[in-house]
Parts: sequence; structure tokens; C-alpha cells
Amino acid sequence: MLTRAVVDEVVTRALAEDAPWGDLTCEALVPADAWADAALVAREPGTLAGVDVFARAMELVGGGVEVTLLLRDGDRFEAGDVIARVAGPARSVLGAERVALNLVQRLTGVATLTAAHVAAVAGTRARIADTRKTTPGLRALERHAVRCGGGSNHRFSLSDAVMAKDNHLAVLQASGVGLTEALRTARTRIPHTAHLEVEVDRLDQVEAVLAADVDTIMLDNFSLEDLATGVAQVAGRALVEASGGIDLGTVAAVAATGVDVISVGALTHAARALDLGLDVTTGA
Amino acid sequence: MLTRAVVDEVVTRALAEDAPWGDLTCEALVPADAWADAALVAREPGTLAGVDVFARAMELVGGGVEVTLLLRDGDRFEAGDVIARVAGPARSVLGAERVALNLVQRLTGVATLTAAHVAAVAGTRARIADTRKTTPGLRALERHAVRCGGGSNHRFSLSDAVMAKDNHLAVLQASGVGLTEALRTARTRIPHTAHLEVEVDRLDQVEAVLAADVDTIMLDNFSLEDLATGVAQVAGRALVEASGGIDLGTVAAVAATGVDVISVGALTHAARALDLGLDVTTGA
Amino acid sequence: MLTRAVVDEVVTRALAEDAPWGDLTCEALVPADAWADAALVAREPGTLAGVDVFARAMELVGGGVEVTLLLRDGDRFEAGDVIARVAGPARSVLGAERVALNLVQRLTGVATLTAAHVAAVAGTRARIADTRKTTPGLRALERHAVRCGGGSNHRFSLSDAVMAKDNHLAVLQASGVGLTEALRTARTRIPHTAHLEVEVDRLDQVEAVLAADVDTIMLDNFSLEDLATGVAQVAGRALVEASGGIDLGTVAAVAATGVDVISVGALTHAARALDLGLDVTTGA
Amino acid sequence: MLTRAVVDEVVTRALAEDAPWGDLTCEALVPADAWADAALVAREPGTLAGVDVFARAMELVGGGVEVTLLLRDGDRFEAGDVIARVAGPARSVLGAERVALNLVQRLTGVATLTAAHVAAVAGTRARIADTRKTTPGLRALERHAVRCGGGSNHRFSLSDAVMAKDNHLAVLQASGVGLTEALRTARTRIPHTAHLEVEVDRLDQVEAVLAADVDTIMLDNFSLEDLATGVAQVAGRALVEASGGIDLGTVAAVAATGVDVISVGALTHAARALDLGLDVTTGA
Amino acid sequence: MLTRAVVDEVVTRALAEDAPWGDLTCEALVPADAWADAALVAREPGTLAGVDVFARAMELVGGGVEVTLLLRDGDRFEAGDVIARVAGPARSVLGAERVALNLVQRLTGVATLTAAHVAAVAGTRARIADTRKTTPGLRALERHAVRCGGGSNHRFSLSDAVMAKDNHLAVLQASGVGLTEALRTARTRIPHTAHLEVEVDRLDQVEAVLAADVDTIMLDNFSLEDLATGVAQVAGRALVEASGGIDLGTVAAVAATGVDVISVGALTHAARALDLGLDVTTGA
Amino acid sequence: MLTRAVVDEVVTRALAEDAPWGDLTCEALVPADAWADAALVAREPGTLAGVDVFARAMELVGGGVEVTLLLRDGDRFEAGDVIARVAGPARSVLGAERVALNLVQRLTGVATLTAAHVAAVAGTRARIADTRKTTPGLRALERHAVRCGGGSNHRFSLSDAVMAKDNHLAVLQASGVGLTEALRTARTRIPHTAHLEVEVDRLDQVEAVLAADVDTIMLDNFSLEDLATGVAQVAGRALVEASGGIDLGTVAAVAATGVDVISVGALTHAARALDLGLDVTTGA
Repeated sequence: MLTRAVVDEVVTRALAEDAPWGDLTCEALVPADAWADAALVAREPGTLAGVDVFARAMELVGGGVEVTLLLRDGDRFEAGDVIARVAGPARSVLGAERVALNLVQRLTGVATLTAAHVAAVAGTRARIADTRKTTPGLRALERHAVRCGGGSNHRFSLSDAVMAKDNHLAVLQASGVGLTEALRTARTRIPHTAHLEVEVDRLDQVEAVLAADVDTIMLDNFSLEDLATGVAQVAGRALVEASGGIDLGTVAAVAATGVDVISVGALTHAARALDLGLDVTTGA
Repeated sequence: MLTRAVVDEVVTRALAEDAPWGDLTCEALVPADAWADAALVAREPGTLAGVDVFARAMELVGGGVEVTLLLRDGDRFEAGDVIARVAGPARSVLGAERVALNLVQRLTGVATLTAAHVAAVAGTRARIADTRKTTPGLRALERHAVRCGGGSNHRFSLSDAVMAKDNHLAVLQASGVGLTEALRTARTRIPHTAHLEVEVDRLDQVEAVLAADVDTIMLDNFSLEDLATGVAQVAGRALVEASGGIDLGTVAAVAATGVDVISVGALTHAARALDLGLDVTTGA
Repeated sequence: MLTRAVVDEVVTRALAEDAPWGDLTCEALVPADAWADAALVAREPGTLAGVDVFARAMELVGGGVEVTLLLRDGDRFEAGDVIARVAGPARSVLGAERVALNLVQRLTGVATLTAAHVAAVAGTRARIADTRKTTPGLRALERHAVRCGGGSNHRFSLSDAVMAKDNHLAVLQASGVGLTEALRTARTRIPHTAHLEVEVDRLDQVEAVLAADVDTIMLDNFSLEDLATGVAQVAGRALVEASGGIDLGTVAAVAATGVDVISVGALTHAARALDLGLDVTTGA
Repeated sequence: MLTRAVVDEVVTRALAEDAPWGDLTCEALVPADAWADAALVAREPGTLAGVDVFARAMELVGGGVEVTLLLRDGDRFEAGDVIARVAGPARSVLGAERVALNLVQRLTGVATLTAAHVAAVAGTRARIADTRKTTPGLRALERHAVRCGGGSNHRFSLSDAVMAKDNHLAVLQASGVGLTEALRTARTRIPHTAHLEVEVDRLDQVEAVLAADVDTIMLDNFSLEDLATGVAQVAGRALVEASGGIDLGTVAAVAATGVDVISVGALTHAARALDLGLDVTTGA
Repeated sequence: MLTRAVVDEVVTRALAEDAPWGDLTCEALVPADAWADAALVAREPGTLAGVDVFARAMELVGGGVEVTLLLRDGDRFEAGDVIARVAGPARSVLGAERVALNLVQRLTGVATLTAAHVAAVAGTRARIADTRKTTPGLRALERHAVRCGGGSNHRFSLSDAVMAKDNHLAVLQASGVGLTEALRTARTRIPHTAHLEVEVDRLDQVEAVLAADVDTIMLDNFSLEDLATGVAQVAGRALVEASGGIDLGTVAAVAATGVDVISVGALTHAARALDLGLDVTTGA
Repeated sequence: MLTRAVVDEVVTRALAEDAPWGDLTCEALVPADAWADAALVAREPGTLAGVDVFARAMELVGGGVEVTLLLRDGDRFEAGDVIARVAGPARSVLGAERVALNLVQRLTGVATLTAAHVAAVAGTRARIADTRKTTPGLRALERHAVRCGGGSNHRFSLSDAVMAKDNHLAVLQASGVGLTEALRTARTRIPHTAHLEVEVDRLDQVEAVLAADVDTIMLDNFSLEDLATGVAQVAGRALVEASGGIDLGTVAAVAATGVDVISVGALTHAARALDLGLDVTTGA
């Protein structure tokens, strides 16, 4: 469920960005009373995300555009499927078209890429999770898209879980602070609802981290063999997350090692916009 | 040259998005007086864009972080090259790391993909141009990245050039208005500084459009053969733009047809974030 | 067509500016259930602009005010004409009155002044264009008003056309760069949709500028005689724009020289608010 | 003293409005390392207002522009006087030029028109006051300009004083409420710091208003003779304000009737921008 | 009457603050089609304020929640009274619950505390006024709550009345400026609608202040005896305001000294949120 | 560590709120060149929070005010202690005084009330936690204040942990969904980093909740006896949180029952502003 205030802010900003002084083409070419019926059509198969955001762009552009949804976020579709129907003044529909498409294409791209990863690990215990490698200003929307694709969200921001990564450990080491003790102290300083996760680069770091009673241990850039060893070593004392350069080609093998979570930055930073088009079917 | 107000708005929003209530990890783990020296390092080759935005994120997070640029936007780099050096309180540097990287990685991805297209058409008359398929809220930054990659910007928004596309023509037709006449009228309604561009899907539409004295004619989804025919037919009476599903594999052949402009939506909607990392080199 | 997001932002800001803590007078004096019927009436003749903005202010103040438009933007009116009717809770109508009037009066002032200039050049080839001398924060609205008055918009901002003015040329000269070559290079750096205009102060600069194949040459502060000479010299190789201190007294003579465009800063920086009033016709 | 937050918001918005995607001209034409020394010069005499806002625009555009003020807000100047000196990267100076000028020209226009009215009533007891007929979004700045011109501010908004005008009285009458009683009740509902002012259209309304112990009585659109009669009738029991279509031609005669305050909407709604220019004196 | 723009800004910000990425609980637990009927119920007696703000939060969260008000701002209620009924999708109602309650509880707390003070001074000439010790960002709402409780607003901000306090007088003294003269000069510089109030700490300062013809004299932290003496000394030449550490235990005695205004910072800075609850009565 | 962007937004908004049109008093009374040295002094003992926010208000008001901190957030102070020294133009210091004080007083009030609760449970295993009953718009700052007082933050928003409360359970029941199963499903839908907490009203609900493997069980409005029974029953299978009307008088007894977390809404919704003052010590 996307927060209304967040969606409206993104859409309003995008509409203003795309037409700071109005739509020259529509004003010069399209009669003020022309009507447009249009269909949001898939040009390739995928998993839908952001169709409500698409609809909101059509509403917020003004003029009384109406959108009827035939599919919902999370639905699978094939090339040629009609996702939604749009009806309204042609100037409004065409004026909002690009913004509405940019949003739903991008979000559907994220959902579709996520769904492919999720399908690849079906039957394993692994969940596919996103990362903080999201588009600045669009995190809430992209995280929603990951959920639409069957993926799982990781922590949302720096504010809602501890994740001690290589750079943190480097600073700690330079400060002469022992890791286990530092993590134990950290636990007392964070909300009781906050998850404590630590990233390690080598198997020999695992015990020191587990000794601090962390919730998740992230094995970063491990070989498949080391991942399996790590899972065995952790033995249920914490969740195990695999991370680092995992893609569709490798994700099934990673899942087979028995990890609980596989985080994939590419879900949001390398997804391409899916090809959805707006076909004007009638105008009068 | 990016507008300062625009950059600051994007960066401030991104920092707030990524830490609405502060950075749990740094507060719990990193001593308040710990220092971090760090390097922005390329993990793969590319063309730089957004290094000033990276630096601005480090500044705006607070605490007095200093950034020294070793490369500038538009510069080429190899894997392993140090792009910038960062020094400041560890909590600030690590708190801004992800936001700063997200921005520079994404923009450098756009610049690098653009540069590849530009290189592919070297020696032809064609310029590589972007489209309005940009990330909502980040258009100014992504357009800058395209320029860093040697590409050319297309119109920035609906407000600064006329582009009559298929959907506009469909509405016009449904309204019973003749195209040539409609375009001539449009010319009188737009600023004298506004460019008039029309998209056609078939060669037989070309003359009607040229008759209206347009500035650019866009040949959308034409075969290479039809593109060449179109260029010959236009014969300098307008600029010729090719568009529609062009990618690195086809762009050179398209350029060889003699078109003036090749617009590539993928530059911004399908670029992946380039792999740049922040290595903490010292902390004390 | 004004962008909805832009209008709402201007109106919301203005309402908050005019009543940060509510309307003392209405709260203290006007019964909560009092009703107001009112008419927006012209006190002097003019050309309407901004009546939708007026209506939006009445809507956004809250309380369910309804506005019926009798005239539309671009319509001419005489003193005494009723432009719109308003009905709603008296506290809402009176609370929004000043903001709604300030906007429509100012915009109608711009449209009316523009219409006078347009009428003065009727029968010539000249179009009357605005400039960037607009009210900070209100450019989109004032540009719309110019169009309502029959005028033409110039470039909207620094981002959508090149205009090389005296200060740019002074910097170029100090940098030791040749003008023609600089302009030719500029052409390759800007979008193919961007217009290239150069301002000259003297006739002897014209050829150097035309040599760079510019789109428009602006003759700044030229005498009528020199304007005519300039038009003849350019001879259709570029559009010719006249600018500099032109007003209603001189604009017809300027147009008679054969220039294509006459830009008049006064349209927006010296227009006075037109006298429109809100008459409460009934309250119960 | 202008509130910093207010000035920065206005200037930031104006800079973004004028260059949403950067300054095409400077990027294409002006070398990145070109320097500009410039002078803000008066082309006609006047009274300065907004020079700090001008300076703030130069600062906020970025790049490290420095502004040295030779005159201060409220100072008188003659044509040719240098008001301020500016030095910085040419791209920054030229990029901020129009926004900075638009603001200082407009505000100086208000101050200069105010000063003319103030001079016209010198030697009388009357103060020249502004109204709420200000530019939406710029009220704080325009009110400051009025003060720079020696004028006096009226209430700032609907929230800080009661002003019962014709439309309020019409609603009251339609609601069947007696005026004197309504005003007495109003006094008990407003802050003890709130001023109570009532507008009357005819002399025979004066006693009913005074009976309610108002602070100021506004005589709206009175003849000079009636104004003098009104002043005599009020006899110091309240301040007397004259209003309604007063201009430079009539203001002295109005002041001679003995009124305390003359409010002039034209100060802000009909002031023209004063002609100030930015001369680039050196560039290297 | 609260300004719509102000309420919407506060509510929108609060909703975004409380659910930057959506409502995890509702998404994970509550069926998308579950319905909630709920009642806003008082758990203790009080005076209502902010019920429209409560309703606006339910509206702005989205989903089509409907709110029916049984009581209005300013109404008294007992424990157990139903204040409003809410019906809508369970995810919307439960998602907005905390934000809606936080606002109405806090404002009702202010109104209730105010009403207690007002009741304590019944029968005296004293009005109970608030101060600028309000919650940053919520002043307009808290001032409204004070009015709901029968209290009176003091000046709203630094911009709408002069209040010379101890620190101003200290600076004046250090600057060597005489108080009476400084106040007389101040009167000429402020709007004729602006109230002039001065705070004194000792009885021997009263005459110097009255000599400047101030509107209100504030006796700060005076004993009851000195207050009575001060009232007698001022003798109607100005309003008398008592201030400084007054609470429910002392306010009646202060009022009995004959002061006109008693300002109580605690109304807004020490009010506790009143206990109002949202009971879900049906869900299907 | 407060996010800079968040602090600046709060402070900027507060300064604009308190002086939309400037500071009438300073402009009318205080010489432009007057200087103020001032001290932030405690009038009662407490625990400091928000001194950096106080300093930021002084900086952001403009004019170059400098603040020297003698104490830091989290420090204890006694009545009379000097917390910070301020030096700058008198108009700036006095103009920012109220906003700066409102913020630091309120936050210090929260920290001080928190510290009292923390002290009351010293020696037990219980941590004192805040709730979402924070001031709309100020949550990040108030949560920081709780930490300054030695308290612990609960989940920050609806987005970062699941908390199933009475109203959620009522909706679930009405939907005919079994609780244990619903919670198990919920676990699969939320981030692996998200905490799962459930509120129960009666002891007989405990086992059904524990069967779903929740992280924390909240015992809401339990008697001391039932709390102890609940702790024994849970027996370490989850964290136990006590909540509901706990205050300074009862918190020690609650802690003695062995609960892990005690959440106290009053920390933020009933804290009063602590009495801190700004004494101008010198002005010249």
C-alpha cells in the first residue's frame, strides 16, 4: 500500500517537471474540445507495478480524466494485454502520457525483474530482497514494485535497521574497538524493534559476529562453496543473507546453498523500463 | 551546468529519504569522533557524470566533509581509477555514502551508455539524442549525464518544442482537421523560438509534413532502407530524426543512412548504474 | 493551457500568505452560516486572463464555493460586464476575494496591455512577444496572459533557447574568442530543437552573426531607420527581432520596418492590474 | 528586515523557474573559466529596494559570486549611479542576471513610486500606506520596498487586523445583524493586539461605526470635501484613513484634508519595474 | 476558521512522516477489502478542538474514508461521549488513526486547559491569552485550539504587533537610547494597525512607558500586590497584561487585581494530549 | 545524530512561521548595528536535548550569529547553568530567540521526563521506550530527545515494524481470520529485518500469539500481577513490553515485574517545555 501523500508528491513533481509552462504541442495542435479514449497496452510480457500511480498522473493533470483498471499491481500480463483504459480530454490524456508511462514502465520493469529472480529460486528457502540502491526520490515506489514482483523488502532506510558493512568495520578497527563488544553495545542503543545485521567478507569473521547475537549475518561476495560452508557454520543461530553481484544467472545456485535471504541491488539499479504503450483508440 | 537549486533539492530530498530518523548503524556503532578518509573508485571503465552531485551529498549531510575531485564530469576512466577523495567525520561520510553513490552511479551509467552510442556513430553526421523517458524528478541530472557522454539533448519538456506524435495525429484525424493546415496554424501559435517537429510512421506521410515547413521530421520505427529513402526524400528541407527501438547493435547502421539525429530512449530508461565504490582508506 | 500543478502551487502559496492564521475579520464579524452570492465585474474594458486561476482560488480556500464562468480567458469585455458568478459560504468567498482578485487583475492587466500592442501592429508581419522580465514565481501565469492577449511567447527560460546578449558578447570578446566561430560551435552543443538567437547593437555586427547561421537576429535599441536597413540586409536569412524600449507609442512604427518579432518587456514588467471587482449581490 | 527564510525561498524558486535545466547560452557560448566583473547601474533616478535580494540571487546561483554594495536599501540614486559591484564566474553572473534584476527592478519600482507619494504629502500629518494588492508570493518583499520608500505598511494579512469592508457589511446586513453591535462583539473575539478598522462609503455611516469604538475608520472613495467633513466629524475619536483611487495627482489634496492615513493600492499593483542594468565591465 | 492550505500541509506532512513507506502492519495483516466502522470516543471530559483536522487526516490518507461529526470544535464533552464516527477501508482508517489522534488529542488538550483557565477568571474583566510558546509548525492550529477553549489569541507572530521585552530594553539601554523616545519613534515606523506593547519588570518603569502612549503595558512576574498597584497607576491609559508563571492555581487571584489580559504560556507549551480513543466498532 | 535536512526543514519552517513579514519590534526599536551577547541559561535542572537545533535557529536567521556550546545533548544541568553562549547582531539574536527557545525547551522537556523514568527503573532489565504519540512534524527531533534522556526508541513509523494492536485484531476477527495463522503469513510478507510485535489485552491471548513466533508481545493495560504472570508465561520466548497509562508513579513497579520494555506515551505527548531562558548579558 503506497502512502497517498508520497505518490501525490512524486506525481505532482513529475508533471511540473515535464510541463513547467504547459504543453506546447497540445495547445498548438489539439482542439480544446477533442476527446481521447486510450488503452494502456503491454508490448511485452511482465508483472505489473504502479498502475495506480499511472492512474494518479492522469487524474492530477486535471481536466477530469477517468481511468479504469483491468489489471492490478502484481498481476502477470502478456504482450498485447490491455492493462487499463483511459478516457478524457485529449489535451489532458496526451499531456500526462509520458509522465504516466515513465512511472508505470519503470516500476513494472522492477517488478518483472524481481519476479524473474523469485521464480529462479522457487522451491528453496531463499527470499529475494532489494537494497538501498534505489532511485533517489522514488524509493517508496520502487520498494512497492519489488513487492509486486513477489520480492521482499530489505530495511527501508538507514533509520530502521542496523547494517554494519565493510566501511563501518574499517572505521571500528581504525578506532581500536573490538567488534563483538561494539555490536553488543550497539544492541543496547537501538530500538528493541531494530534488526541487527552485520556484513562479513570472510568465513573467519563469522564467529565473532555470531558471538554478538546478531539477527542476520550477511556473507558478501562469497563463493558458492563458502556460502554453503557459512550456512552450515551459522547453523540457524542467525539468518544468513547472501549479497554481492548476484544476478539471474547465479541466483538459483546461490539459493541452493541454503541461505535465507538473497539481496540483489540490480532489482532497482539495473532494471530497465518495461515496454508499455498508450494507444489512442478513439478521439472525437 | 546544473542549476544549483535543482541539485540541492534532489540531494536534500534523497538524504531525507534515506535517513528520516538518522543513521541507526552509525549512531550505535561508530564513535562520534571517528574520522574517515575515503576514495571514490571505479570498479569498471566508463565516462563520469555527477561527481559534483556526489560531492554535494557529502557536503549537505553536514559535519564538514571535504571532497577533492581528481576527475571531472565527462572524463573517461578505467577500472581502479580514483575519481575523488573524501575526508570527514566517519558518521557523515558513511551516512551519505549510499545516497552519494546512488546518484553518481546512475548518472555515470547514463553517460557511459551514451558515450558508447556516440562512439558507434563517429564519422557520421548523426547526433545521439536523449528523450523524455527520464526518471521522474531527475530529468535535469540525467540530461546533464547525456551531455557528459557526448550526447545531445532533445527538447527538455512539453513546454519547449512542439513534437506531434502518433497520438496527436490520431486525435487530429478524429477531429477532422487536415494535418498540413493544422501544422501551419500551430506555427503561428508557438514562440518563434520553438522548434516544430512531427513524427511519421510511413514514407507517404512525409510530403504532407514537409509542406507545413516543419523543422524536423521524425521517422519512427523505419527500416534502414526506408530511413535512407526518407533522408533522400527530405533532401535537406528539414532535419531528419530516426527513432524507435534503436540500440547499440543497430545505431551505426541507422547513422549510416544519413539521418541528422538519432534519439535513443534507452540512454535514460535502460541505463544501469555503473559500479563505483567508496573505499574507506583510513579512519582514526 | 496552464499546468494544474503550477496553478495550484501558486494559489495555495498565495492563500497561505494572505491568511497564515485565518481571517480575523470573517471570524469576528461574519456568521459561520452566512451565504454570499457574488459577481466578478469589470470596472473598465479589457481582455480577460486568469479567470480559471480566480476560480481555483475560490475552490482551494475550502468550504465548497462554486464559480460559474460567463467569459473565458482571451475574451474581450467592457466596463460593467459580469465575468463570473460566485456562490458559497460568505467566510470562504470573502476570505479568498483578495487573493483571487490580485491574480486575475494582474493577469488581465498583462493580457489587456498585450492586446493593445497586438492591435497596434495589425496588418504587419510582426508578432508581439514577451520577455523574461516576468514576476518571479509567476512566469507561467504571465506567459499565459500574454497569449490570452494575442501575443506570442518568447523562450520561456534560460533552458530552452540560446540568446546571446551584449553581456555574453562582452565576455566572449574578453576571452578572445571569435564570434562567428563561437556561435557555430554553440550550435553543435545545443539540442537540435534549440533556437539560436543573437542580439546586436550595431548594423556592422549583422554579417558576422548571419555567417554563423543563426535562427533569429535581434536588433537592440535600433533607430527606425536602422531597423529598416537591418531587415533589408538580413533579407530573410534569419528572423529579425526588434527590442529595446518599445512601447505603445512606437510599436506600430517599429512593425512598419518589416521586423518579424517585437519583444516588449513592458508587457509583464510594467502592466498595471486591471480594475475588476467582486460585488456581493446577495447574502443570506 | 526581511526574513532570511522568505528571501531564500523566493530567490531559489525564481532561479529554478528561470533555468530548470541550466543556462543553454552560457553552456554553449561562455568558457567555463571566463570571469565577469559587473556593475549594477541605475539608468534612471529612484529609491533603492531589494539590493540584498539581488545579492542573494548572485550568491545562491552558485560558483562563488561576490557582491559589494555601494548603496543600501532606502538610498536615493541618480541615473548613472553604480549601486553594486559583482564579480564571479561569467556563467554564474550571467545566469543569475535576469532573476536578480527582475527582483531589484520591481522592488525599486515600488520604493520609488512610494517615495514620490511620500514626498507629495510632506508637511501633512498623513502617512502613505500600502494595501493587500501585492503580487502573490512576494508580499513580504514588496512591503519591505514600501518601507524603503518611506511609506508605511498597512496590516500584512487577513490574520493581523480586522478590516470590515463593503462586502462584509453587505453580508452582515443580509444576515440582519446590527453593525454597531456586531463590531462590539467582534472586539471581544479578536486579540487585544488586533486593530479594528471599518470602511464606510457615506458620511452618514460614521457615527454607527464610531459608536463601536473602532480604531480606524476608512473613508472609501470620498470627495475631498466629504473627507474634510469626515475628519472634522471623527474629531480624533479614531484614526481616519482615506482610500480609493488616489494617485500622485490627487494625494496631496487628500492629505490636506487632515486624514491620518492614505492607502494607495497602486504602490504595489501599478508600480513599474525601474530601469537598472547590469554592465559587464570586464571579463577575462 | 483554519486556513485550508495550512491544515492540509500539516496533515500531509504528518501522514508522510508516520508512513514513509506504507503501513507494514496493515499490508501484512489486514485484508485489502476489510471495512472498519469506528468511533472517536472521549476517555475523559474536555473541550473539543481539531475535530476537522482529525477528519482531514482520515480523508487525506486516501481510500474514501467518511467522517461524520457529532460534536464541533468548542463543544464540551464528557468521558464516554462519541465525538465522531468514521467509516472506510480498514487499512485507511487504521493507517491514519495515530496521526489523526495525535492532532485532535493535542489540540483538545490545549482547548481543555484553556477552558479551565477561562472558567477560573469568570466574572472578572480579564481575558486569557496565549503566547508565542507554541509548537514549531503548529501555531495556527494551537491558536485555533485556544479560541475553542474560550481563550483569546495574543499577537500571532513577530510580524503583527510590537512587543518590547526585557531583552529589547537591555539592548536599547546598552545602545544609550532613551526608552520613551525610542517607543515614540517606533510608533511612527510601524503600521497604524500595529499594537504597541511593552513589558516592564518594575513599577518604576510604568510612567516612562505610558509617556510613549503605548497600547498595552505588560507587568511581568509582578506580585499580586504590585499588579493591583500597577492597574491603579495605569488607570485606563493602556491595557494591562499580566504575565509570568501564572497557572491554574494563581490565575483567579491575578484576574482579581483588575488586569485586562492574562497571558499564559502553559496553554500551549505545557498542555498534555487529552485522552481520546478510536474504537473500531465493526469490521467486515 | 539528527539528519541535517530534517533539522533545517523544521527550523526554517519555524522561523518563517514566527516572522512571515519580519520582526516589527526589532525593526522599530533596535538599532541595525546593535550587538547582543547572550547566554542560554537553565532556570531549573534537567537533561539537555536540542541544543544543536537551538544553535541552528540562530544560524539560519541570518546575520552571522555565532553560538558556542558549553554543554552537549544528553548532559545534565542544574538551575543557573549556562548551556550556550550566543553573539551576534541584536536584531538576529532577538528575532530567533523565541523559535530557538521553543525548540530546545520542548526537546529538553522530553529528555528530562525520559531521564526521570529511566532513573526510576535503574537496576531492572526494563528499557523505557517512546511511542508514536509524538508531535506531528517533530518526530525525529522528539525521538532524539528521548535518546538524550537515556530512553530507547520504539519503531519510528508504520513503515518499520509490525505492531498488531487491538483495532487490527478486531478487524481480523470480523474478517474471520485466525490470529496465529494471520501472524505467520504476515511474517512472510514483511522484510526479514522487520520486527513483529503483537498487543494483547488478556493473558489468555498470549499462547496464540507466541505460537506465531512473534518477536515482542505487548501486554496492554495489565495489572502488576498479570504482568508478572505474563512474563513468567512468556518465559523468554519473546520480548515482553508493558504499555498503557504508565507514569512516573507506577513505572518502577512495572519494571519490577520483569518486563523487557516499558513504553510510555507521556514522554512525548505530556512533556512540558523545560524552563530555559536567554539572558542578554551585553549589547553595544
